[in-house]
Amino acid sequence: MILVSVDDHVIEPPDMFERHLPKKWADAAPRVVTQGTANQWIYRGKPAGLVGLNAVVGWPPLEWNSEPSGFAEMRPGAYDIHSRVRDMDRNGVLASMCFPTFAGFSGGHLIQFRDETTTAVIQAYNDWHIDEWCATYPGRFIPLAIAPIYDPPAAAAEIRRVAAKGARGIAMPEMPHLDSLPSYHDEDYWKPIWTAMAETGLVMVLHIGMGLRSLTMAPGAPRDHTMILACQITALAAQDLLWGPAYRNYPDLRFSYAEGGIGWVPFYLDRCDRHYTNQKWLRRDFGGRLPSQVFLEQSLACFVTDPHAVNARHEVGMDIIAWECDYPHSDSIWPDAPEWLEKEFTAAGCTDEEIDKITWQNACRFYRWDPFTELPKERAAVGALRALAADVDTTIRPRSAWAELYRQRHPHGGLPGLVGQA
Amino acid sequence: MILVSVDDHVIEPPDMFERHLPKKWADAAPRVVTQGTANQWIYRGKPAGLVGLNAVVGWPPLEWNSEPSGFAEMRPGAYDIHSRVRDMDRNGVLASMCFPTFAGFSGGHLIQFRDETTTAVIQAYNDWHIDEWCATYPGRFIPLAIAPIYDPPAAAAEIRRVAAKGARGIAMPEMPHLDSLPSYHDEDYWKPIWTAMAETGLVMVLHIGMGLRSLTMAPGAPRDHTMILACQITALAAQDLLWGPAYRNYPDLRFSYAEGGIGWVPFYLDRCDRHYTNQKWLRRDFGGRLPSQVFLEQSLACFVTDPHAVNARHEVGMDIIAWECDYPHSDSIWPDAPEWLEKEFTAAGCTDEEIDKITWQNACRFYRWDPFTELPKERAAVGALRALAADVDTTIRPRSAWAELYRQRHPHGGLPGLVGQA
Repeated sequence: MILVSVDDHVIEPPDMFERHLPKKWADAAPRVVTQGTANQWIYRGKPAGLVGLNAVVGWPPLEWNSEPSGFAEMRPGAYDIHSRVRDMDRNGVLASMCFPTFAGFSGGHLIQFRDETTTAVIQAYNDWHIDEWCATYPGRFIPLAIAPIYDPPAAAAEIRRVAAKGARGIAMPEMPHLDSLPSYHDEDYWKPIWTAMAETGLVMVLHIGMGLRSLTMAPGAPRDHTMILACQITALAAQDLLWGPAYRNYPDLRFSYAEGGIGWVPFYLDRCDRHYTNQKWLRRDFGGRLPSQVFLEQSLACFVTDPHAVNARHEVGMDIIAWECDYPHSDSIWPDAPEWLEKEFTAAGCTDEEIDKITWQNACRFYRWDPFTELPKERAAVGALRALAADVDTTIRPRSAWAELYRQRHPHGGLPGLVGQA
Repeated sequence: MILVSVDDHVIEPPDMFERHLPKKWADAAPRVVTQGTANQWIYRGKPAGLVGLNAVVGWPPLEWNSEPSGFAEMRPGAYDIHSRVRDMDRNGVLASMCFPTFAGFSGGHLIQFRDETTTAVIQAYNDWHIDEWCATYPGRFIPLAIAPIYDPPAAAAEIRRVAAKGARGIAMPEMPHLDSLPSYHDEDYWKPIWTAMAETGLVMVLHIGMGLRSLTMAPGAPRDHTMILACQITALAAQDLLWGPAYRNYPDLRFSYAEGGIGWVPFYLDRCDRHYTNQKWLRRDFGGRLPSQVFLEQSLACFVTDPHAVNARHEVGMDIIAWECDYPHSDSIWPDAPEWLEKEFTAAGCTDEEIDKITWQNACRFYRWDPFTELPKERAAVGALRALAADVDTTIRPRSAWAELYRQRHPHGGLPGLVGQA
């Protein structure tokens, strides 16, 4: 088995901007402050996203929460590239696409400020992500960039710039109108961005969670609602794109739905096709095809673990299913992904060919990424990677014990520093 | 094949309150006014729901819309019980559960006014529905009532009253907080209602559409959104019930999701189970069972046509799937339901046993309804019913042609009158 994960998360290290933001903007660089045991990113005087948002890998489940945490309490694989690759080896994962954390899954926390400074910060973010995080271990990370989407020409320029540097996707909001940007129905606004992505082959990548605010939750709803319903929003986000101009007017533009699961696809597409063929009075045009055909040709969907949907994989579409690990979040199945998947694939009676499609081929085709440029296939498989990492410590420890280990590594205190100083 | 449909709609005839609302309240009775070719219900000076909401059966698809229409333009089966039963025969449908139209699927248009008068109107509505609409053809309609849910003790009394008269379900809102009632997380409020339903065995029936306002639609979204996304709301409504007190504190209370489709079930339940088993820090209690087990024991879901979901029926759960016709709405497959279903069941390789479960057994068990009390099984099947109705005219006609036919039947004009005067 070969595993390529199309959705993981990097907890950005505190020094990430030091080597990438031109001096001119240095004063505006986002920076990390310490508040008790927690750390917090600050951008231009305002808190940006949580440092450790859900980075619970290595903690006992009863200690999980969504409160602020600190670098010292985290498993170093969350923020340190060398530890991360070792953790990937231990989990048999060849390659990973990593979403931002403090910046927001699609940069939403940075674009509170919509000006040249933020554009420079976003460029620095992308340079760090591509040239440092991803480039330290060639072949192990599929670069994912963000863009200054409040300024479409600048965003288009940034898309072309990062495409030339090897990026394979742009993380975009599920529903930009929730952040007082034009909705995806406003083609005039999004045209430069979609054109740049279609021409460079970069995928428009949507991560769950960002669209939750489109739902009015019931008073008294428990917090489980946000976690369970986040996946249901994926279909709502897809609806704006499939029934708006994005899919149909940009046939070379492709869309990846991260962490949304795959089980929503057949249900949603059946409804789309029935609506399209039945409600003829609305006179919609999908170019002589069905909405499902258009969707299936331009989309990728992924899951962490989802036994019913794997059983129903042929209803979903064998060519659009990818797998994701979601490291270091609570939904992740690190370090036992191969065992989880093996069990699901066996129960569902998947063939080897189907397993290859799901675990790496679909993702690699979609992101135009050759997984074997650095590691030949025989060294890229689960068994070979795990053999390199037999010594990786997978102990589950309370947060306080992680912090104690950190103090031993950093007897003089402080935040984790440059690459290699986890 | 035997067909029991758990979701159809009655377009209430204008004279419905004449024989059922006590004189004391007669002045407050909802009444129909004529505006051009359209009719409109008025309740206490305010427009109530559209008379012909989506009652497009018999119209050419290019004439469908969601504008106001008039009784004269409709196929009489929409509002006339005798024509309705003939149309059911023609479609091979043995029995039908009919939702209100002008009153709102769960009475929402009446309960704009929350007082004793509306309680009396609701009682009259239920008496008309049970004693007149359903009772005219015994064995052909599964009675569905509404309740004055703004007054829980009065609602509980009405539930017990209609249960004694044979009702099998109460139509309730998907999300009552959208109508400024307490949400389904407020057990103190809903307790008398849920207790009455659980004790009488009446099912809590939720129809799609009512929860749409929980979504903030994107600016510029086409009207397709509301029709396609209405089904996606079903899972959101289920979430309030399954993760709130309703399912878990009332094990005898049962829930039916009308027109929501069935394909959402496995995806939603996989997510629920994974969340429950993984996010242990939230310490939720499902009584030693999985959320999916609780849901599957207390739920019914239904579909009109949904080929992918029928293929994946074992992922959905063979005991919770029912079928619906949605007559006289645009989603309906009248008069060819048997042919549509036959094709879907054959393509999916369904066994006869599975077909029986889907087309009538699950629905009848769930609603505790014996379909063969009036018609023995051999006379209840599609072929036998259709043989009675070979002469039913299924011509598709423009609205204006329907209106012309109406003028021929009613040379002196006016609204359709008492039972038997379509």
